[in-house]
Amino acid sequence: MKIELEQVLPSQIEARSFEIIGRELEQMGKVLDPEQEPVIKRCIHTTADFEYADSLVFSDRAVEQGLKALKAGAHIVTDTRMGFSGVNKGRLEKLGGEALCFMADPDVAEIAAREGCTRATASMDKAAGLYGTGGPRERIPCIFAVGNAPTALVRLYELVTEGRLKPALIIGVPVGFVNVVQSKELILTLPDTPYIVARGRKGGSNVAAAICNALLYRI
Amino acid sequence: MKIELEQVLPSQIEARSFEIIGRELEQMGKVLDPEQEPVIKRCIHTTADFEYADSLVFSDRAVEQGLKALKAGAHIVTDTRMGFSGVNKGRLEKLGGEALCFMADPDVAEIAAREGCTRATASMDKAAGLYGTGGPRERIPCIFAVGNAPTALVRLYELVTEGRLKPALIIGVPVGFVNVVQSKELILTLPDTPYIVARGRKGGSNVAAAICNALLYRI
Repeated sequence: MKIELEQVLPSQIEARSFEIIGRELEQMGKVLDPEQEPVIKRCIHTTADFEYADSLVFSDRAVEQGLKALKAGAHIVTDTRMGFSGVNKGRLEKLGGEALCFMADPDVAEIAAREGCTRATASMDKAAGLYGTGGPRERIPCIFAVGNAPTALVRLYELVTEGRLKPALIIGVPVGFVNVVQSKELILTLPDTPYIVARGRKGGSNVAAAICNALLYRI
Repeated sequence: MKIELEQVLPSQIEARSFEIIGRELEQMGKVLDPEQEPVIKRCIHTTADFEYADSLVFSDRAVEQGLKALKAGAHIVTDTRMGFSGVNKGRLEKLGGEALCFMADPDVAEIAAREGCTRATASMDKAAGLYGTGGPRERIPCIFAVGNAPTALVRLYELVTEGRLKPALIIGVPVGFVNVVQSKELILTLPDTPYIVARGRKGGSNVAAAICNALLYRI
């Protein structure tokens, strides 16, 4: 068997990939909302998984609200170092924003051990202490990009319903088998919180970062 | 609709996930090679995508050779910061190993610009300069974990066939649409190089890190 490589310039690889994704979506008869399209396509680009064309759920004007927050210098809090690594921090910082992940912080490990919760849960509590009601960064819009831990998403749901936190956007795309589906369904019940959620079991830190970047590349 | 969370202790979430994965694989009638099973299951755990039960291809005794290299203090070179972030560096360092990613190095950017290649290609050249024939780290076994760039994998193929590099293991799981399938097929033609490859378009930095960790957790 002869393996033939397609000749594509390094600078053209991404454009060519998006062209292929667009063509295949068309062949599948998928018609995407133009606001959501760049986000959906970037998730497919990151995973080669066309299920995201069906599984991503956007609250009303979620993209618009995410873009508004980023333009206002939003911080992005992730639930993994991998997610943090994947976010285009150059773009974010140009807008006055910052990416943060509290998972490896000693105080988060301490809280988790004391409370018997996951570090992901404790890291959301730490974020709420900073960005939530009465916190020192209450005025900075905060986007939560959860690609790994359903427990983080469940805690976000609780913090929002208790009125202690008002996220600018929740990106709810944890992956896995224990409470992943449920944690996402909880977010979908929030009436006033902008969200982008990948329904079902699939997702990941790579997907969370891809959604952040899809928004950043729109600005 | 009532959303019910499963009550699972934080310390039990991973075990419960693997239990679900094992049960569902059984229901699908998949019988895995015991050597390969922990790697395959961890890829499914990371992606919630059961396709990895079919798409992962192992060269003869790849797991055994990967474990041997890690026990001997292998370094792991990744093609993204995300892959680097995902590798359990605590475990790796306990074995005398190290994780490295050259993608953000200024000399790599320079070479890429000069040669008109991707930074991923240039980063593999840099690795070959260190770990390849005559390089200062020639005696350190080197595992390449490629989860993003097919160009990195193509370059690895060339370096190996030119006799300039002898990887302890190639983890070839880039994701995407341009030369991804072909780059993996090239690796599958290498007669004497241990490899773990995810055939097809799917893969990712998360999958590359998951395979590294599946090996590390066996030791």
